[in-house]
Amino acid sequence: MIKITDEEALSYHQYPRPGKISVETTKPVDTLKDLSMAYTPGVAVPCLAIEKNPQDAYLYTAKSNLVAVISNGTAVLGLGNIGALASKPVMEGKGVLFKKFSGIDCYDIEVDTQSIDRFCSVVSAIAPTFGGINLEDIKAPECFEIERRLTEELDIPVMHDDQHGTAVISAAAILNACELTHKKLQNLKIVVVGAGAAAISCARLYRHMGAEKIIMLDSRGVVHNGRSDLNEYKREFASSEYLTHSQAFECADVVVGLSKPGSFTIEDIMRMDNDPIIFALANPTPEIFPKDIKKARPDAIVATGRSDFANQVNNVLGFPFIFRGALDVRAKKINIEMKVAAAKALAELAKQKVPDYLHKLYDTKLKFGREYIIPKPFDKRLIVEVSSAVAQAAIESGSSMMKNFDIQAYREELKRRINE
Amino acid sequence: MIKITDEEALSYHQYPRPGKISVETTKPVDTLKDLSMAYTPGVAVPCLAIEKNPQDAYLYTAKSNLVAVISNGTAVLGLGNIGALASKPVMEGKGVLFKKFSGIDCYDIEVDTQSIDRFCSVVSAIAPTFGGINLEDIKAPECFEIERRLTEELDIPVMHDDQHGTAVISAAAILNACELTHKKLQNLKIVVVGAGAAAISCARLYRHMGAEKIIMLDSRGVVHNGRSDLNEYKREFASSEYLTHSQAFECADVVVGLSKPGSFTIEDIMRMDNDPIIFALANPTPEIFPKDIKKARPDAIVATGRSDFANQVNNVLGFPFIFRGALDVRAKKINIEMKVAAAKALAELAKQKVPDYLHKLYDTKLKFGREYIIPKPFDKRLIVEVSSAVAQAAIESGSSMMKNFDIQAYREELKRRINE
Repeated sequence: MIKITDEEALSYHQYPRPGKISVETTKPVDTLKDLSMAYTPGVAVPCLAIEKNPQDAYLYTAKSNLVAVISNGTAVLGLGNIGALASKPVMEGKGVLFKKFSGIDCYDIEVDTQSIDRFCSVVSAIAPTFGGINLEDIKAPECFEIERRLTEELDIPVMHDDQHGTAVISAAAILNACELTHKKLQNLKIVVVGAGAAAISCARLYRHMGAEKIIMLDSRGVVHNGRSDLNEYKREFASSEYLTHSQAFECADVVVGLSKPGSFTIEDIMRMDNDPIIFALANPTPEIFPKDIKKARPDAIVATGRSDFANQVNNVLGFPFIFRGALDVRAKKINIEMKVAAAKALAELAKQKVPDYLHKLYDTKLKFGREYIIPKPFDKRLIVEVSSAVAQAAIESGSSMMKNFDIQAYREELKRRINE
Repeated sequence: MIKITDEEALSYHQYPRPGKISVETTKPVDTLKDLSMAYTPGVAVPCLAIEKNPQDAYLYTAKSNLVAVISNGTAVLGLGNIGALASKPVMEGKGVLFKKFSGIDCYDIEVDTQSIDRFCSVVSAIAPTFGGINLEDIKAPECFEIERRLTEELDIPVMHDDQHGTAVISAAAILNACELTHKKLQNLKIVVVGAGAAAISCARLYRHMGAEKIIMLDSRGVVHNGRSDLNEYKREFASSEYLTHSQAFECADVVVGLSKPGSFTIEDIMRMDNDPIIFALANPTPEIFPKDIKKARPDAIVATGRSDFANQVNNVLGFPFIFRGALDVRAKKINIEMKVAAAKALAELAKQKVPDYLHKLYDTKLKFGREYIIPKPFDKRLIVEVSSAVAQAAIESGSSMMKNFDIQAYREELKRRINE
């Protein structure tokens, strides 16, 4: 794991100028004529065009490539509810990742409210500014209603990445783990340890993709119908029968840990089926470290959230490319079909021959197998494969506002860009 | 006047990419270590620092140089209430001017509401994101209450430029016109033609600076106490006696037109005192064209809002430098003292010897006098003179949150920057 001192982290953020982003002009502004086009009187022409046809905003403003990264600071990284202002370095950082991986411009917006109503009112009011909205680090269960309401209300894509990012990437990893272990998704017994934003979304996506047996555990044990302390989101995954923690793991094929160190144990994974698929995604300290998992279960396929172990489930494999595809076909929503398409494209990419620059960059031989079931973040092919798959799914599912979009030409254009 | 065709204006906005701005990263993001500082885990360090001490947001995020340009699209240029989305090209353009003239990063934010309450709720919720807020193109009278409420509520500078920009620049022009005509501000009879956002703010600033006799005209004639149709803002400037339109101009020293072509006439200006100061600021077509004013009143000092005539009252002389100074001393407000300081600094700068590059750029000999009472927008000294004057006024008036700010060092730093 890369070591960073507090001084290094602060210095990186402070010098030579505070923060990590700037806003730059993309058009010439050197002459009086330039200024007369950028501002009055010339700017009146695109204003009137947009007033007449709102879709023209995609032609004459930055909207078509602009995503808002919006948080209220209620669930920031593992730091908890540190407030809107203190979340700003993370939101700027998310914007930096968007720019780096898919060229999307981001405005970070920190919203100082914990009220669902006010938050939704604020975001929907400022939505005309943007081509898409990435919600970030909003605590559960509020995040579910916020995302649902904004998605319904707005005609631009809205995604809460803490929910769906992990779901999409882990689903890709499960697909490939199934292939390697000759198991079928619909036959898997999947244990999801945790019942927060990511856990609920993972369970929903796995179920949508065909998984039939999902058991969810929260801090009080197995989520089941006999409990009276469940919110509506946990209730979606409540077992009909009472199960102990140990029984949940009995012959399980998959465990996805989205909780904290120690929330499942060596004893638990010893109860699992052959070739267990064990994702210990608590970050930075996994529920169980890979070396301990492998010692107890040499037949396991293991993934974590960390870059220093094999098979990193990293959201950066998803959100930059999902939004890229969604923006480029002017999707009205990021629907479940688009998320499934992203997961499948990721799974497929991991099976392709890995280019040499990646072997060099990661200083290891990457080949599809138990130690490489998910692509690496610096794989330049991600944008081609994931964004075009998302774009195609948007078109086929009716989410795109574009007519006659040429998906093949789009793929070629993305390829051309990465080869520049 | 620079001619721009509709095709040119649209093409400028559309190609090679839509809009006029992009968001760029200012820190290295090339290695895994870079990403570990820009995002998790390193980013947690500045987050925790800001949680502990909110002022640290100015050290570790882009806040210290970030201004929101916010509109609801209710009074866009001369186009009227075209809505939030259609105002986006103007707001991006305003951000371009901020960047060009004073290096400030701007997020344009279009807010889709006409309700004062909701607008204020939205802006105050997102305020932690920014170091300052420039309100733009919001219709009167709503703009007055919006600015007042946000200024009171927030601890970052808020300014509605349509109100104060013209006020500051025209005040500078009046100061210099007084000097040239040996008149005193407190003795002037000033006629303000118009009663919208800019007119009210002009009248307030002139009065604060010492003007004692201000007569305001709206579309129904002179604003006076006998009228029952006045809002509270016009009432501030209601004459105690009934006056006809013609009587308002009788022996007036100054007329400031902030209305529309024809709202005052040659006949009106013929009634004015010797050496009349006539600002015909309706844009793009002034109330009366300068050549017609000069023909009728060869003794007049004339200004307009246009770049192709002498003495352009252009807001770009104000807002970039006012916010620059306000941000750099972390002013809590942009108070009246800071606006007066900006006006006086502008007036003073026009009296200085003009550098050669400006003669060349404007293809004319610029020398303090009736044809040059206000600096030109491309004068590089503006940031030094205006921003340092605003910063000093912020400190002296108690608006700055900084202790022991070295104003002399700040001036030198600004000088150094323009000489780079």
